[in-house]
Amino acid sequence: MYGAGDVRVETVPDAALREPTDAVVRVLRSAICGSDLWPYQSMPPAGQGRPMGHEFLGVVEDTGAEVSGLKRGDLVVTPFVWADNTCDFCREGLHTSCRHGGRYGLDGVDGGQGEAVRVPLAQGTLVKLRAGVDEALLPSLLTLSDVFCTGHHAAVKAGVSPRTAVTVIGDGAVGLCAVLAARRLGAERILLMGRHKERTDLGREFGATEVIAERGEEAAERVRELTGGDGTHAVLECVGTLQALQTAFGVVRDGGVISRVGVPQYTDGPVGFGMIMRNITLTGGACPARAYIEELLPDVLDGRIEPGRVFDRTISLDQTPDGYRAMASREALKVLIRP
Amino acid sequence: MYGAGDVRVETVPDAALREPTDAVVRVLRSAICGSDLWPYQSMPPAGQGRPMGHEFLGVVEDTGAEVSGLKRGDLVVTPFVWADNTCDFCREGLHTSCRHGGRYGLDGVDGGQGEAVRVPLAQGTLVKLRAGVDEALLPSLLTLSDVFCTGHHAAVKAGVSPRTAVTVIGDGAVGLCAVLAARRLGAERILLMGRHKERTDLGREFGATEVIAERGEEAAERVRELTGGDGTHAVLECVGTLQALQTAFGVVRDGGVISRVGVPQYTDGPVGFGMIMRNITLTGGACPARAYIEELLPDVLDGRIEPGRVFDRTISLDQTPDGYRAMASREALKVLIRP
Repeated sequence: MYGAGDVRVETVPDAALREPTDAVVRVLRSAICGSDLWPYQSMPPAGQGRPMGHEFLGVVEDTGAEVSGLKRGDLVVTPFVWADNTCDFCREGLHTSCRHGGRYGLDGVDGGQGEAVRVPLAQGTLVKLRAGVDEALLPSLLTLSDVFCTGHHAAVKAGVSPRTAVTVIGDGAVGLCAVLAARRLGAERILLMGRHKERTDLGREFGATEVIAERGEEAAERVRELTGGDGTHAVLECVGTLQALQTAFGVVRDGGVISRVGVPQYTDGPVGFGMIMRNITLTGGACPARAYIEELLPDVLDGRIEPGRVFDRTISLDQTPDGYRAMASREALKVLIRP
Repeated sequence: MYGAGDVRVETVPDAALREPTDAVVRVLRSAICGSDLWPYQSMPPAGQGRPMGHEFLGVVEDTGAEVSGLKRGDLVVTPFVWADNTCDFCREGLHTSCRHGGRYGLDGVDGGQGEAVRVPLAQGTLVKLRAGVDEALLPSLLTLSDVFCTGHHAAVKAGVSPRTAVTVIGDGAVGLCAVLAARRLGAERILLMGRHKERTDLGREFGATEVIAERGEEAAERVRELTGGDGTHAVLECVGTLQALQTAFGVVRDGGVISRVGVPQYTDGPVGFGMIMRNITLTGGACPARAYIEELLPDVLDGRIEPGRVFDRTISLDQTPDGYRAMASREALKVLIRP
């Protein structure tokens, strides 16, 4: 990416081992993330391109001398941050704060929207999938890299359980995955806020029991109406705008939890008197996907959940600039790249 | 209170039953709360006085026809909000959001800084203490009305346990009670931020292992130094200013919890990108003291904890205006009123 709206497909040096803890992974499936759209809309023009993409699965091509448990030919999925999986933060399940980890596309690490990626700290980062996985499962397995784990993180941090009524704000891929995750955790009542019928229809299939198509304060009012004036215990904020956060405060029940997983497009939020008087908790954050992949994998492999249904367009690597355009214009919900 | 700095002791009609669910309580001990100081510093002058006080214990003098379990002569302590203790919010332990509850000093309900109080929903609100309680225990029992429960709420909402390192921001009575509560919940490392030596000395006796006397960003830096750069899992914010909240973000560990119990003197706070990237949780709120009193009572009655030590001045009802002055000027940590 060279700036807002300027994505180019370029030939770069082949991904290659640099550290003994690296692996090189040949990408089978990659994706464009909602969070990629923020720089796509606002990045200042740059002389040098920034490698993009942090969701991918693929086949191990080479491993450094210190990597064990992985070998050439293994099918692997990566969480969207790389991490050692051994430091105290990782042991606490907070791989996004790993003491030695980092992000794809930064500091000389490749992006996932490409043919191959050098993965640092490969042994800690990559999760090996069983051999002979049905190709039809690859899109759902790919969502473990970020989007489904992120929806799951929102639900987990909100304490979603069979006793919890849940509002999900946002019908993007993360919002829909949050619906699916909340359902998987047993929530019987899931109110989905969204205005794109084909998206909210998928939300219903994922477990949403009610869809709220109104906007802003009207939407909040509708949720309160539907919940006897109280709102819901859990609110999963999957957008990232200040308006979405304000809506979240408008629909959360006293004593409830707002769990955010959208990248905030604001610096300050309304956390004063009202939040305190009502004992509202604000939680969530960047998802430590590595902490969840193994737990979620069986349900994906068994087909009990199909988060891969959020992909509604598949493109080749050359079509990546079109993929960004399609997602930014909301023609596509989420784009899968097949290099 | 007739306005900022203007507290008067006046003769008002005797407290009397109005509803069949009321009780009249003769006040034995009352207190001035840190939260009373906010209007003491900012309330616009008013033609009519506002009854003050919401922390008290006393003896039941009369009960309405629908009050059972309480009778004339019973020693009782009140949580600082009255509540039915039966609605869904109360059953969830959130008495501050009771569907039928309310606050002392508002809507025709007496304040606790007086000789007697009509307590609405008395059966749900009041907690009966055993007969023959040693008078020396009354100050500590009085703290169950608000200040010690509030410190406990901060610690509970922060998830304090023996595994948690804790920073307490504020050496006021709530902050010191938060130290005591964190210690009671097993925290072995408690860093207390405060600059008043006699207060932080009491904090050490309550369980603080380190005292940080620096201010603002310097204080945050000191906590990070003391914790290998990381900060602490739990931060109990017991002040209520924006600076205290900023300090809290400066000392909380990634993945940690900031629990607030001070009344916020701001409307917006820094809950943007950094909070999300670091997976910080912001929680706390007005303490549902009623939910905690029975649990904390045995430790107070046995003398295992002495939260009443936060009272460093005892006054008569007539001296109440002086009591406000002493607390506002920080001459007194917390004032006990003995009508």
